[in-house]
Amino acid sequence: MDYQSILNTIEQKLDKRNCKGKVAAYIPELAKVPADKLGMHLYCINSGHYSFGDSNEKFSIQSISKVFTLALAIRFVGDKLWDRVDVEPSGDPFNSLTQLEYENGIPRNPFINAGALVVADVLVTHLENPKKELLDFVRQLCEDDTIDYDERIAKSEAASGYRNVALMNYMKSFENINNDVDEVLDFYYHQCSLAMSCKELAKAFMVFANAGKQLSTGKRILGKQKVKRMNALMQTCGFYDEAGEFSFKVGLPGKSGVGGGIVAVHPQQYSVAVWSPMLNEKGNSELGMDALEELTTLTGLSIF
Amino acid sequence: MDYQSILNTIEQKLDKRNCKGKVAAYIPELAKVPADKLGMHLYCINSGHYSFGDSNEKFSIQSISKVFTLALAIRFVGDKLWDRVDVEPSGDPFNSLTQLEYENGIPRNPFINAGALVVADVLVTHLENPKKELLDFVRQLCEDDTIDYDERIAKSEAASGYRNVALMNYMKSFENINNDVDEVLDFYYHQCSLAMSCKELAKAFMVFANAGKQLSTGKRILGKQKVKRMNALMQTCGFYDEAGEFSFKVGLPGKSGVGGGIVAVHPQQYSVAVWSPMLNEKGNSELGMDALEELTTLTGLSIF
Amino acid sequence: MDYQSILNTIEQKLDKRNCKGKVAAYIPELAKVPADKLGMHLYCINSGHYSFGDSNEKFSIQSISKVFTLALAIRFVGDKLWDRVDVEPSGDPFNSLTQLEYENGIPRNPFINAGALVVADVLVTHLENPKKELLDFVRQLCEDDTIDYDERIAKSEAASGYRNVALMNYMKSFENINNDVDEVLDFYYHQCSLAMSCKELAKAFMVFANAGKQLSTGKRILGKQKVKRMNALMQTCGFYDEAGEFSFKVGLPGKSGVGGGIVAVHPQQYSVAVWSPMLNEKGNSELGMDALEELTTLTGLSIF
Amino acid sequence: MDYQSILNTIEQKLDKRNCKGKVAAYIPELAKVPADKLGMHLYCINSGHYSFGDSNEKFSIQSISKVFTLALAIRFVGDKLWDRVDVEPSGDPFNSLTQLEYENGIPRNPFINAGALVVADVLVTHLENPKKELLDFVRQLCEDDTIDYDERIAKSEAASGYRNVALMNYMKSFENINNDVDEVLDFYYHQCSLAMSCKELAKAFMVFANAGKQLSTGKRILGKQKVKRMNALMQTCGFYDEAGEFSFKVGLPGKSGVGGGIVAVHPQQYSVAVWSPMLNEKGNSELGMDALEELTTLTGLSIF
Repeated sequence: MDYQSILNTIEQKLDKRNCKGKVAAYIPELAKVPADKLGMHLYCINSGHYSFGDSNEKFSIQSISKVFTLALAIRFVGDKLWDRVDVEPSGDPFNSLTQLEYENGIPRNPFINAGALVVADVLVTHLENPKKELLDFVRQLCEDDTIDYDERIAKSEAASGYRNVALMNYMKSFENINNDVDEVLDFYYHQCSLAMSCKELAKAFMVFANAGKQLSTGKRILGKQKVKRMNALMQTCGFYDEAGEFSFKVGLPGKSGVGGGIVAVHPQQYSVAVWSPMLNEKGNSELGMDALEELTTLTGLSIF
Repeated sequence: MDYQSILNTIEQKLDKRNCKGKVAAYIPELAKVPADKLGMHLYCINSGHYSFGDSNEKFSIQSISKVFTLALAIRFVGDKLWDRVDVEPSGDPFNSLTQLEYENGIPRNPFINAGALVVADVLVTHLENPKKELLDFVRQLCEDDTIDYDERIAKSEAASGYRNVALMNYMKSFENINNDVDEVLDFYYHQCSLAMSCKELAKAFMVFANAGKQLSTGKRILGKQKVKRMNALMQTCGFYDEAGEFSFKVGLPGKSGVGGGIVAVHPQQYSVAVWSPMLNEKGNSELGMDALEELTTLTGLSIF
Repeated sequence: MDYQSILNTIEQKLDKRNCKGKVAAYIPELAKVPADKLGMHLYCINSGHYSFGDSNEKFSIQSISKVFTLALAIRFVGDKLWDRVDVEPSGDPFNSLTQLEYENGIPRNPFINAGALVVADVLVTHLENPKKELLDFVRQLCEDDTIDYDERIAKSEAASGYRNVALMNYMKSFENINNDVDEVLDFYYHQCSLAMSCKELAKAFMVFANAGKQLSTGKRILGKQKVKRMNALMQTCGFYDEAGEFSFKVGLPGKSGVGGGIVAVHPQQYSVAVWSPMLNEKGNSELGMDALEELTTLTGLSIF
Repeated sequence: MDYQSILNTIEQKLDKRNCKGKVAAYIPELAKVPADKLGMHLYCINSGHYSFGDSNEKFSIQSISKVFTLALAIRFVGDKLWDRVDVEPSGDPFNSLTQLEYENGIPRNPFINAGALVVADVLVTHLENPKKELLDFVRQLCEDDTIDYDERIAKSEAASGYRNVALMNYMKSFENINNDVDEVLDFYYHQCSLAMSCKELAKAFMVFANAGKQLSTGKRILGKQKVKRMNALMQTCGFYDEAGEFSFKVGLPGKSGVGGGIVAVHPQQYSVAVWSPMLNEKGNSELGMDALEELTTLTGLSIF
């Protein structure tokens, strides 16, 4: 079965009507997204692009942006980052404070909110203009200068972000945040507001499938060893307290966002992005999880 | 660099003298093992066997046995097993009771003690002679009928196993254990006492590198999909609360035991076992972790 | 208003029909008790006995027995007891294991199950015939040799006591239990099975209202300082995770049991016992709590 | 032994030199207080005032202020307050976030920081000029118009109060804070900064020993039932996670602050304040605890 047929099969199998997932309601702007949006884009290292549905429509990538900021932060501070953030799965929901309390303000990993806020703090320290430079980085990965923040989303998030303010101040009390709380949060809300389509996300994540090099240009963006480690992190920590489930069913490193997007990579094979805003109870796209499980089943390929 | 040269390089780099790990002391029989034992065996899917050091000496495989019992249990009850055990990383040490309390007696995954005890309970229900049938299964995987339990280890473990008795009774209070506590524990202590060498372990685990088929005979032992899922579980949960660290540094699915053994597989490439009894603070072999990190670095191969 | 009028008023106000509490179901023998039993007995230090309802009917005192065993244990080991049990309220349900995990096998206080099991272990160490000697002690307090264990209850409890077996073994793994698990549990199940009426309980607890002396004989049973401390413990820890609520509403030191009994004392004033088997969600007698709140309101007397 | 002799005996027994406690260092202004300050003031309901040492020197009352604000808040919202704050001991340190997470933003009691912040939020809602009106209330209780906030302390606390900002925002995310975070915190830091001497504190707390009436004027300040409940709360929750210990050793309702002050009351007998800035590991004045234990031992009086 060729890739496009596989994607078509997946599209047919996904049952939007009986999906029990719910569109994220915690910020008003996200709640406006139509529940029945659905798209998927597969970018193969040797054989091009395949897609279906709303694969060209931009959505809020939310936590998927944590992969981009982590990549940038590792560039600047390398393994020193791991003094301030751990690399273990959390076993708790994405915004849990309990763990921080038991572990003295060191977040479990860079993909829970607390960890991503520490990463954002690192970038605010090291970048002259963090928002611009992050945008440049993502645009470079996508070879597309139109990618941008969605200011309405960023504003909406800031207005209801009490829990993030709590996390920041709590970590600051453990001296694990160095910059001004508001400045870091402004950067963080912007990174989460990045608007990208499945096609753009798949293209951006190809660097993780291609051992750190941009596929089109062959240019090295990230060290091979760093890519290996980031993929490992996505594998064990990319899906909040459902990372095991995703690994178990899909068997690929990946990252989800509450906008309903999921990106995954199969090293040396492909990167893939899927979007459906209806989230399961753990905050991951329900149809997105199904689509990727179907993909690895139908291709007979997973990293395991 | 050929595989034997890589193993030689690893052997030279491992620094036994400066290793800060400690031999497991929680049962007297394990504490007797000489700290400076060190062996490694690599079994490649296409190109044979490589080894160094004490790779032919048998040791107590302890928690590595949980992979064998899980494979057997999945044969009998399939996906029904997941009603009684979850597939998420635990974020807690291997014998934590806290999580069981918050999650009503459902262990986080089959590789923490609580989960392995539920798996043992399943086997006691479904096997006529559990100890004999587990032994038959492992002997089949190794094509070696001399593999056996170490009764002294099993007895020693039973004599100090208060925490396991606690776990069993606690889960029984949640009705997640069906058989007599003592009978299940007797089976469990025997599985942990299995004595195997690195060479034998690498051979037994080849089934997970070879998509469920025995390499020598081509005989299917486990379904392909089941192997994929078991590898995913080893990836996210195989190293207690250091699973992230192992994944991050080594990038292979694997399983460790407090006897100092670690087995890992690279699907379609190789299985590998390493043994050094000096454990780090998390209960995993310190030099074993180093050896495997070195291996994936030197071969330039990891699943990521 | 004289005391008997106050008790009559309380009896009228208690609304058995609309009580939402439920008879304890966790052991079959307890579940058989008629839900509508209700009795109360007040024993005043200066002015005799008052009662209503089923105040002379025996019921299973369950956790109320923890006060008797604590008094006996303090006699033998004095303040050394507090190396093995703390004196802080638990904030968790009565059979929580989480706290033990974080606090290395030291129970929060002697009135949660774990703490009472340590106390039982102390008595098994120090008494030649623990069951007989506890009975002698309670009979002495009541001046009544007919008081006895209810063997059916003890047996029923033993048959379903997985959680207590778990607690015992868990604490034994921390070396906080010295005797054989089964022997201690046999003693513990017997202490819980003590069958006493409200009248008998009020009489037995008079020693805590009367600064350690038996009221009828003037004989010193417990040191004044020890009584002060035991009353303080009943105040802060006598009602599982509802100790604050009881203190807040009733304002007396007391102890409840899942048999539906509650005993409380007002030092230098009275001891009082009430019984109604319908338990609220926290495991305390709903009408019993109401009756005692009414009592301190109507008498205008509380320790605060 | 008369009261002044008892106080003299206490003063002699307290061993400042061997006290292992440490002056609170978490805000710079508190750290400046000389460690060897020590004073005590006893105010008897029938027989006047007794004191020793630095009993007339003002210090920062810190958490003791939570009793004043609670009294005021209960005036305004009565029992409705308990929908937003519970009355159970916490079993956790005073600034724990874990409990809030498990209990959906409802603080365990009004004397942990989270609970006091909710109380402050209530006052900001109901008082036109909260800072002025709180001051008026305390001045009334003391019959002393010179009592005032210490602006340096308030400012110092605000500058390092990341954990309080975290608590506030976290509770706001659960909709348990209604006003502007900064406004409530400004009020809270001021209440904690109240500067009072032992003599003034003992006088202010006489209202809790005297069933709600001012002793000098006979004027009712608080309802009798409300005083009973507030005393019960001080008994079970007044000393962070050392409430049981204080109850056990001292046997009086009381409240401590990290400034080194402790106030306690014996209903119908006396109120008493002691000050020594050297805190034990739980954050309570070490010598203060000793002094009060000595007091109830020497007087032979406790509520138990």
